Amino acid sequence: MASKITPGEKLMLDDLFIGQIFKSEDYALAASEIIEFASKYDPQPFHLSDDGAKDSIFGSLAASGWQTAAITMRLFVGSVPIEGGLIGAGADVSWTRPVRPGDILHVDSEVTQIRPSKSRPDRGTVTMRSITKNQKDETVQIMESRIVVPRKPQ
Amino acid sequence: MASKITPGEKLMLDDLFIGQIFKSEDYALAASEIIEFASKYDPQPFHLSDDGAKDSIFGSLAASGWQTAAITMRLFVGSVPIEGGLIGAGADVSWTRPVRPGDILHVDSEVTQIRPSKSRPDRGTVTMRSITKNQKDETVQIMESRIVVPRKPQ
Repeated sequence: MASKITPGEKLMLDDLFIGQIFKSEDYALAASEIIEFASKYDPQPFHLSDDGAKDSIFGSLAASGWQTAAITMRLFVGSVPIEGGLIGAGADVSWTRPVRPGDILHVDSEVTQIRPSKSRPDRGTVTMRSITKNQKDETVQIMESRIVVPRKPQ
Repeated sequence: MASKITPGEKLMLDDLFIGQIFKSEDYALAASEIIEFASKYDPQPFHLSDDGAKDSIFGSLAASGWQTAAITMRLFVGSVPIEGGLIGAGADVSWTRPVRPGDILHVDSEVTQIRPSKSRPDRGTVTMRSITKNQKDETVQIMESRIVVPRKPQ
């Protein structure tokens, strides 16, 4: 079920429900940004040029999976308004398809688990499943993230 | 057990063994790089300035966890010489402690699982556990990554 959020509204644990969905904006990824990210953080030939990717399983330039994860975080921050911000304890990421120059990505995030903390009544952990898709609606990444979310005073 | 690699040597599935350890070089992270990354991929106040972090659980400027993951990938690429490159199917990441401006990170990666593919005799999946530590030897991130590794002709 899509979440209806008033602009500027911030959500706490008690505002979330299983099955709640948040939809992001689009993010257009240029070849130059793929190469810039890879030069710094994942300098392997298939993330740096078409030529370097020719003989790899990618065949042509593909983005680092960690860049797809970073872009997903960007879109997640823009679409899931949690009080105090999105503070992750961890995440499980799977890359299902290469991300290419010119791809336009968007992310749908669904609340899959809500766990109030037993020791800290002011917070809890929420698990969200974020599916990152390209402009052809093909899934390029599945991320399950564990977020620390504040609770209203009980 | 630490891996002994000849410079330029590339490893295939058959060269890896459970418990094999790869040690990375160091990576010094400046405040400017924390802010640059966050501006692009995780624009939340606590990743952008000390002031913005003051009232958060971080207290002062902290790096995005996704930047820690990206730096870990950089160090992983430099320390684990797999034939054809490091191609990830996915990863599970946990952030155990904030990364701060001036931190010097390094990564120890251990082979924890080796699974030859049943359907593709030319490859397999290797699970590696990479522990990212700061200059005080405190663990800042634990990553379990699933890598596709080629096999020698059988």
